Amino acid sequence: MQIARVIGMVTSTVKVPDLKGVTLLVIQPVNTLYESLGTPIVAADRFGAGVGEYVFYSTSKEGAMNLPIPTACADAGIAGIIDSIAIVKES
Amino acid sequence: MQIARVIGMVTSTVKVPDLKGVTLLVIQPVNTLYESLGTPIVAADRFGAGVGEYVFYSTSKEGAMNLPIPTACADAGIAGIIDSIAIVKES
Amino acid sequence: MQIARVIGMVTSTVKVPDLKGVTLLVIQPVNTLYESLGTPIVAADRFGAGVGEYVFYSTSKEGAMNLPIPTACADAGIAGIIDSIAIVKES
Amino acid sequence: MQIARVIGMVTSTVKVPDLKGVTLLVIQPVNTLYESLGTPIVAADRFGAGVGEYVFYSTSKEGAMNLPIPTACADAGIAGIIDSIAIVKES
Amino acid sequence: MQIARVIGMVTSTVKVPDLKGVTLLVIQPVNTLYESLGTPIVAADRFGAGVGEYVFYSTSKEGAMNLPIPTACADAGIAGIIDSIAIVKES
Repeated sequence: MQIARVIGMVTSTVKVPDLKGVTLLVIQPVNTLYESLGTPIVAADRFGAGVGEYVFYSTSKEGAMNLPIPTACADAGIAGIIDSIAIVKES
Repeated sequence: MQIARVIGMVTSTVKVPDLKGVTLLVIQPVNTLYESLGTPIVAADRFGAGVGEYVFYSTSKEGAMNLPIPTACADAGIAGIIDSIAIVKES
Repeated sequence: MQIARVIGMVTSTVKVPDLKGVTLLVIQPVNTLYESLGTPIVAADRFGAGVGEYVFYSTSKEGAMNLPIPTACADAGIAGIIDSIAIVKES
Repeated sequence: MQIARVIGMVTSTVKVPDLKGVTLLVIQPVNTLYESLGTPIVAADRFGAGVGEYVFYSTSKEGAMNLPIPTACADAGIAGIIDSIAIVKES
Repeated sequence: MQIARVIGMVTSTVKVPDLKGVTLLVIQPVNTLYESLGTPIVAADRFGAGVGEYVFYSTSKEGAMNLPIPTACADAGIAGIIDSIAIVKES
């Protein structure tokens, strides 16, 4: 799973029926220092994650596993909202 | 899921039977500023998306989930046509 | 799905039984201008695609969906032979 | 599968129910010389791998196969803890 | 599928039970000129491929399809040992 910041959303009237009522967030992948990495993607959300929040998300088939219809034509989904990331200093 | 602009189509007589009658669009992945990113791919379409329209698409197994035969040998499919992308300014 | 040119083939005596009798092509991914992109891969073929022909192929689980044994240990397969690619000029 | 060093962990209260009680490690992919490669990811762990340990992990659907609920919305999981990597000098 | 040279192996005592008794090779992806490309990965092997041999391998779910337990938490597996690669000169 990767870490991302929620930065916006996509609206779509014409889409696969399995995604009706599912929020489509635009998320910016980030590293563990919360720095942006690469290009934003569109991910399905069930948690009501808000803009500015950090989430971890899954891609491929697992990305849709938390949707009402897990076989939906969706390849990225929010798996959870991040409370904190602890990077442990190695001694 | 990623965002792309429809830029053309592929015609193929000899192909897997599961893709007969399925439109094969050529789509150019873009970022949230609608700037081209990387190489166009071929994606199956059920929505009649036209050249110049922006779509979001899924890859891997999910890419075929909206096809008449979801187990088709296809790894990219249009999930919806984009009305708008809202990138929210963080305060 | 991506576009590629057939450039050769692989012979293998010791391989997974599910791939016995399946042609293993070496294909060079290309862009829509038929320019080479990145590294050739090995893809299973059922269509008799010849060297110099352009194909579109699927990867991951879908790559094997057109094989005699769709659960074969193969992650790339030819989905069809390309007749033409039309890139539409946007007005 | 790829090799990584465990560098930290993520805490998340709001997440998919299938991941409740599953440790979410932050791991840094490395090469066979144990040098860091690219960006850390979040991976589910069942082995109690500690910070500084080297693991090998799977992504995509296989990443969740060792979880209590293998269909969880998780696309990366620790497959094992590495005792040693032997790179054989070719003569 | 991609081509790789076998360069070593990984030993792991603590690992997913489905991988017990499965050889874990370290393989270096190569191009069709047998030049190294990118980072070595860990792949499950059932063929006894030796160091210095060239193999073709599958990733994602297909990578585990030749294992005793195909649902193992493994995302890369050897699909066969390469006898030869023929790149055909186009006239």
